[in-house]
Amino acid sequence: GDAAAGKAKSTTCAACHGRSGISMIPIYPNLAGQHQSYLSTSLKAYRSQQRKGGNAAMMWGIAASLSDDDIDDLAAYYASLPSTK
Amino acid sequence: GDAAAGKAKSTTCAACHGRSGISMIPIYPNLAGQHQSYLSTSLKAYRSQQRKGGNAAMMWGIAASLSDDDIDDLAAYYASLPSTK
Repeated sequence: GDAAAGKAKSTTCAACHGRSGISMIPIYPNLAGQHQSYLSTSLKAYRSQQRKGGNAAMMWGIAASLSDDDIDDLAAYYASLPSTK
Repeated sequence: GDAAAGKAKSTTCAACHGRSGISMIPIYPNLAGQHQSYLSTSLKAYRSQQRKGGNAAMMWGIAASLSDDDIDDLAAYYASLPSTK
């Protein structure tokens, strides 16, 4: 994935996950510094609505509009962010 | 949750998620510094097998044996770890 392209696509994500991938709302996970393949797998599980439970359903609508490239770019972007809180 | 009690219960988790909550295997998420309520919600979603997709099924068996207190203690423990990679 292309982190720079991911950054450009991350405006919607930032609303809940924070401008730097550290969310101020504890039910939304921090994404900064998370593993790229885990982020990509998770987004695809939301997109396919296989991932349920907790607040998962909030992500279904968001992920539904993402292409594989979008997902890989977003995953690369968040994986590239420093995870320091 | 009680982070010290969580640490004592984390031996199994460390195998995949790393001794300090940073996993060496990119399909397993880093847990260190993640939000406690997100960790707790996720573990409960694995326990109820609502969370599917990707490698979720690996967690079903592990989470099945956890009580709510175990989950809250583990969530407190991993949330307390420094998230620096």
